[in-house]
Amino acid sequence: MLALMMDRPLNLPSILEYAAAYHGEREIVTRTVEGPIHRYGYADALARAKCMANALIALGVKPGDRVATLAWSTHRHFELYYAVAGIGAVLHTINPRLHPDQIAWVANHAEDTVLFFDVTFGELVGELAPKLATVRTFAAMTDRPHLPPQAPAGTLVYEELIDAHSPQFDWPELDERQASALCYTSGTTGNPKGVLYGHRSTVLHAMALIAPDCFDLSARDAVLPCAQMYHANAWCTPYAAPLVGAKLILPGRQLDGPAICELALAERATFLLGVPTIWVGVLDHLDATGQRLTSVRNVAIGGSAPTASLIRRVEDQLGATVRQIWGMTETSPLGVINTPLAKHEGEDEALAAQRKLKQGRGLWGVELRILGEDGTVQPRDGVSAGALQVRGPWVASAYFKNDGAQAFLGDGWFDTGDIATLDAERYLRLTDRAKDVIKSGGEWISTLDLEDAVSSHPAVAMAAAVGVPHPKWDERPLLLVVLRPGFSAEPDELKAHVAGRVARWWVPDEVRIVESLPIGPTGKVLKRQLREQIADPAPV
Amino acid sequence: MLALMMDRPLNLPSILEYAAAYHGEREIVTRTVEGPIHRYGYADALARAKCMANALIALGVKPGDRVATLAWSTHRHFELYYAVAGIGAVLHTINPRLHPDQIAWVANHAEDTVLFFDVTFGELVGELAPKLATVRTFAAMTDRPHLPPQAPAGTLVYEELIDAHSPQFDWPELDERQASALCYTSGTTGNPKGVLYGHRSTVLHAMALIAPDCFDLSARDAVLPCAQMYHANAWCTPYAAPLVGAKLILPGRQLDGPAICELALAERATFLLGVPTIWVGVLDHLDATGQRLTSVRNVAIGGSAPTASLIRRVEDQLGATVRQIWGMTETSPLGVINTPLAKHEGEDEALAAQRKLKQGRGLWGVELRILGEDGTVQPRDGVSAGALQVRGPWVASAYFKNDGAQAFLGDGWFDTGDIATLDAERYLRLTDRAKDVIKSGGEWISTLDLEDAVSSHPAVAMAAAVGVPHPKWDERPLLLVVLRPGFSAEPDELKAHVAGRVARWWVPDEVRIVESLPIGPTGKVLKRQLREQIADPAPV
Repeated sequence: MLALMMDRPLNLPSILEYAAAYHGEREIVTRTVEGPIHRYGYADALARAKCMANALIALGVKPGDRVATLAWSTHRHFELYYAVAGIGAVLHTINPRLHPDQIAWVANHAEDTVLFFDVTFGELVGELAPKLATVRTFAAMTDRPHLPPQAPAGTLVYEELIDAHSPQFDWPELDERQASALCYTSGTTGNPKGVLYGHRSTVLHAMALIAPDCFDLSARDAVLPCAQMYHANAWCTPYAAPLVGAKLILPGRQLDGPAICELALAERATFLLGVPTIWVGVLDHLDATGQRLTSVRNVAIGGSAPTASLIRRVEDQLGATVRQIWGMTETSPLGVINTPLAKHEGEDEALAAQRKLKQGRGLWGVELRILGEDGTVQPRDGVSAGALQVRGPWVASAYFKNDGAQAFLGDGWFDTGDIATLDAERYLRLTDRAKDVIKSGGEWISTLDLEDAVSSHPAVAMAAAVGVPHPKWDERPLLLVVLRPGFSAEPDELKAHVAGRVARWWVPDEVRIVESLPIGPTGKVLKRQLREQIADPAPV
Repeated sequence: MLALMMDRPLNLPSILEYAAAYHGEREIVTRTVEGPIHRYGYADALARAKCMANALIALGVKPGDRVATLAWSTHRHFELYYAVAGIGAVLHTINPRLHPDQIAWVANHAEDTVLFFDVTFGELVGELAPKLATVRTFAAMTDRPHLPPQAPAGTLVYEELIDAHSPQFDWPELDERQASALCYTSGTTGNPKGVLYGHRSTVLHAMALIAPDCFDLSARDAVLPCAQMYHANAWCTPYAAPLVGAKLILPGRQLDGPAICELALAERATFLLGVPTIWVGVLDHLDATGQRLTSVRNVAIGGSAPTASLIRRVEDQLGATVRQIWGMTETSPLGVINTPLAKHEGEDEALAAQRKLKQGRGLWGVELRILGEDGTVQPRDGVSAGALQVRGPWVASAYFKNDGAQAFLGDGWFDTGDIATLDAERYLRLTDRAKDVIKSGGEWISTLDLEDAVSSHPAVAMAAAVGVPHPKWDERPLLLVVLRPGFSAEPDELKAHVAGRVARWWVPDEVRIVESLPIGPTGKVLKRQLREQIADPAPV
């Protein structure tokens, strides 16, 4: 027997329509790529998104077509989020930090038909254009005076497209399972793989994000995502903020400490999010200027694990609560988030600091399991590590064009490629990427734990643990360390520092101080490259 | 092009499974109908719900079958919410305050096959049994020693059903559009009409309820619904609380001030909800005892509109914020809720009090429109009243068996039968039920406004405005007033009181002091009966 409830589809235009109707004057504030601050309300954003929807249709964009962007976090990018998905097409947000060959590769793999780009990328796009097999329209996200001269001939101008089209537009009825956006994971191995989000998955994910135990967003909040809109859709804040009528502050391309602090102060941001390195810049700037961001209530930190000292500094200097989050492009990105339980009320400060180092707990909507090498569910003891697998309505079921199918298991779960533990309270802690794991004498050694251990030494700027072959133990850990400028430390001192913090047999046989580590386009150490370098060192 | 995201259905078992896994020891605390306080965790509740699922299947309950309850807000009722829906059957929560003939009518209309009842209703069910054409199984929600002797012969015992069945049960895969629960609106006219909720609508509604701008629920909350689980599912808190792992406090049948205060104090409730009369009892008890409910953060008030003085007393004496809510059985029940906007930060106390008298604003998921008599959308000026119509994924699309089809409009909207205004900030204010509206000289007079106006007089306990025929103006208002015990007031004094508060032509021609008003099973004045009494007064 079917329910007798209205069969209204969950779709993205409904979010912006809601924001425009109920929070029409609530602002989207952008630090534009051209320079000045731009501000307008959700009603204006809707009107312009509708102009753009008309423009896209006039350009021949059909439902299912991929429309690409090479763009920072701005109001125009926001408009494209809704205009492209709203006509039933798919917004492909390309990471401009990829190597140009990879950009061409993903654009061709996605079969993008239109490419919108920020003025920053005029030269890049001019050079790439001949390699883009399917792109037939280029459009610069600016006005005529700012059109970069190196852009391909015939490049259209965003503001002219807006001006030339009507804000009258009726969104087509969309199946809620229709694709809305495409985002490639820039994995550290192999070609990037595309995650194809849908209207339903994105709406459900946005509803989950606003919950008190997640980002805790209301109409009284001002959300400043210190993440780019090509990184898992800036953690989907461009959907979550209008869903509740929160102010949305878009930082353009500038994610440095001074720029973020200026915006957060001026716009009285209440919620910030970003990867750990962002906060180092913010804190250093606050230190240098003596400023305080008193309006901020919560700071979400994800992408990689923050150190205890970083969490403490953010909480002390911003007066905000840190919520660590784990997720990935394939999980929209919400996987788990670290919020306290009722039993933690009045918890000891040291215990709270320990708890906050974990990646977090599951919320309704994401099912998690951790399987050992024998395929059995691991005990929840905070020690037994295994393959982290997830399932839920905002988790990918496949990659675009069926790449990387081995991650999608026959029983409906997605293998994240992470190795993790769950403790008795079900807080998740990542210990490794599966492909980076060190196996010594048949047991796993956590590279993340080794890196965390040495990183707590004041002289350490960055660290990477890798396994090196060993005749008896198969593998033993090698710890590579980059020192902070102006600091010094001896390898033996660092080894002793680690020895005090991990199991005895985990202590690396060697700590090696190096000048730099190879970093990929998402800011992560490229461990495969590192292992190759170690195995076959280039002549000095 | 379809998205490549997992096609996980939104279903109710997933909520309880989540709560059991992630908040297994978080408590459901019940004041049982038998007397003692009962407490257990969500993991226990899941295990017992699975026992009951096995029991229902053993009793021959098939997907789509209706299983009825005549029951208060208890843990056993909670278990049935999940057990019945979880096997694909439909839980029909009958309002025991209905007249016995109406109870028989709805049970027969719903074609209930099983009837679960609390011990309170042993005699009632014993008398009703012969009239229940389709019920083949009766079960008392208690243990053997408490089985009421007047229950029908062969009545099963809930705890014996639990004991006799295994907690091992795999929920069947359910289409998310499958029906899960049936609730009849006990309208003041005609036969009750059934609203058939589904898994999808209920999950989406629960996700909407927990948002910071709605009930604002996290794992750290303790939710005490001062509403019965047969009234729009206790405003769906039995779904929303486990969705976030909040403690759930179920008051059994006792919604009087002392009982609620005792539970709220002992269990440190953070969120309460109920109709206005509930709070009068709570406040009077707090006054009498000098107690304070310091743990409460928010109090949702709905069902009918609270007066300014009631809101002020709740906020003062509980130290909580009042969130007025409007909704109905047909809207699951969330329609609108009164939470402040960013612009209201630091608002003047008097303005805040005025704002809180409105029913609230729309959240994403419920679309509202107000149509004038000519079918045009009314201006948002806080004055222009019209028919309130709604649309959304948790709004009914029809009544069970297609009763009352005229409320479901051809263009997909539901006509609520309420008359309302929207102001410039989109706060909704109800002015009347469409069938109660007074039309005088071609213009509407709001009966709710007249009742509010006279109710602010200290001597007034209750009031009802009705239209009486008038040769010149078609109708004129008559205001019937019940005085508070120990107070006195003259009709002219009350008329003068009203005259200072409404438009001059709204002032009723007559204020009549009466001993009582006819109250229906949901606590609302039966205005149709009142109009009939006035038109054809019974001999004194």
